[in-house]
Amino acid sequence: MENRVAYQGIVGSFSSMAARALYGEDFTPIQTSRFRDIFEAIDQGNADYGVIPLENALAGSVHENYDLLQEYECYIVAEHFCPVHLHLMGHGTLASITRVLSHPKALEQCSRFLEIHPTITAVVCSDTAGAALQVARIKDPYSAAIASEEAATTYRLPIIQRSIQNHITNSTRFVAISKTPLQCASPTKCSVVVSLPHEPGSLYKLLGQIASLSLNLTKIESRPILGRPFEYSFHIDLECSPDLSSKLQEALVRIEEYASTFRLLGVYEARPAV
Amino acid sequence: MENRVAYQGIVGSFSSMAARALYGEDFTPIQTSRFRDIFEAIDQGNADYGVIPLENALAGSVHENYDLLQEYECYIVAEHFCPVHLHLMGHGTLASITRVLSHPKALEQCSRFLEIHPTITAVVCSDTAGAALQVARIKDPYSAAIASEEAATTYRLPIIQRSIQNHITNSTRFVAISKTPLQCASPTKCSVVVSLPHEPGSLYKLLGQIASLSLNLTKIESRPILGRPFEYSFHIDLECSPDLSSKLQEALVRIEEYASTFRLLGVYEARPAV
Repeated sequence: MENRVAYQGIVGSFSSMAARALYGEDFTPIQTSRFRDIFEAIDQGNADYGVIPLENALAGSVHENYDLLQEYECYIVAEHFCPVHLHLMGHGTLASITRVLSHPKALEQCSRFLEIHPTITAVVCSDTAGAALQVARIKDPYSAAIASEEAATTYRLPIIQRSIQNHITNSTRFVAISKTPLQCASPTKCSVVVSLPHEPGSLYKLLGQIASLSLNLTKIESRPILGRPFEYSFHIDLECSPDLSSKLQEALVRIEEYASTFRLLGVYEARPAV
Repeated sequence: MENRVAYQGIVGSFSSMAARALYGEDFTPIQTSRFRDIFEAIDQGNADYGVIPLENALAGSVHENYDLLQEYECYIVAEHFCPVHLHLMGHGTLASITRVLSHPKALEQCSRFLEIHPTITAVVCSDTAGAALQVARIKDPYSAAIASEEAATTYRLPIIQRSIQNHITNSTRFVAISKTPLQCASPTKCSVVVSLPHEPGSLYKLLGQIASLSLNLTKIESRPILGRPFEYSFHIDLECSPDLSSKLQEALVRIEEYASTFRLLGVYEARPAV
């Protein structure tokens, strides 16, 4: 049976492209309009995998998905870095358009373009490709979408201006999630969320537990714990070469031992960043 | 002469409230529609101070402002934590409204409300209070704004639904910035951006430099350096009690010594988080 893969948006969304990069062409897509629906689909056995964005090079972490990862019993089983070029597309010209539709994170990545075009109103859509489809249907000279090249091709929208994101280099890190952890002989990456004893030097002590293991720390982010001032959780990703895989497992044991609270988000294979 | 204080938005915006909390009632406000204009005003001597949001408890860091802090020669001189309650306001009812105007970060903090009301279209404005003013002017039953209580009062908009943000506890950390660093005898907080030698354990070694100083690490966030895959910068905030102020200065010396690149964002007085 084909894998059922849930993602946000429709064909041409960056999530749909990440799903194809991770699962090829032969899967049954389950398209949702909300991230939460992806987790629900997995939780209820209606999807085998979900594909979600976790962080964008320009706009930072997608905290909503980090929160959902902790709310649902779900594990990261794979990752994929997707280059993100955002194009302005529609049936008008730069002079004629008065409103532009896109996903909030895409609008954020194009904030400079929007700043220098103050007469263009930004309207929020649940995904970039959905914005392109809507603009294709409206077919007036006033509406445009910010979306991928694939969305422009799929919904036959002329590109008005290419790569309008704030920086030419831009990518989003997607992960695949599943109800069961990956059974992987040689994982090269792991993601955890921990809270630490409330004392000076606690992060130093945590890192000390794993300092001798020659692992790379590829992400660390403190987040205030809502409703508990002065307390933080830490999102940590560790990476290693395949020959050090056993040390990654060792690191997890040591981190769990030291941390006040510990949540394993997943153990999987690292992919190259773009 | 009164201080000239630049902030984004108009009266009733959270930035305007933070500016008042930091500078009282007696200052000349310079209202801008973009964060960049705040930095420009300071750079060109048209403002003495700027007030900008750096992070929200629900939506995370405002990366745009972190980037601007590094682009311009500007220093953090004070901080203020502002409780953020977002209310739905307008002349209609929950049943009649079809579109809601607000700042993208405010929309993000109300994502659950928007998800359960899919017939309401979200429209982006440059600030929450500006959205309220616009809705007050339109005065139809279809338009609403998401903004502060003060905006509702100022622009005489009935509140349709209170506190629609995703979590009842919500706050934004604002900082005041200036062209010259604060001359402060006993600073209790500092913010830096550093990059580290590209080798395993480099963050551990950095934290080791300051481990014996009994400082609190209140923020740490790695960010990929654009265009340089596998390289990261770290945003770090350290805090201490007033009697340990000299150790904060010592920590800065040691961090600068160890880091590959070092940028001091500011040395100032810590305020209580809410």
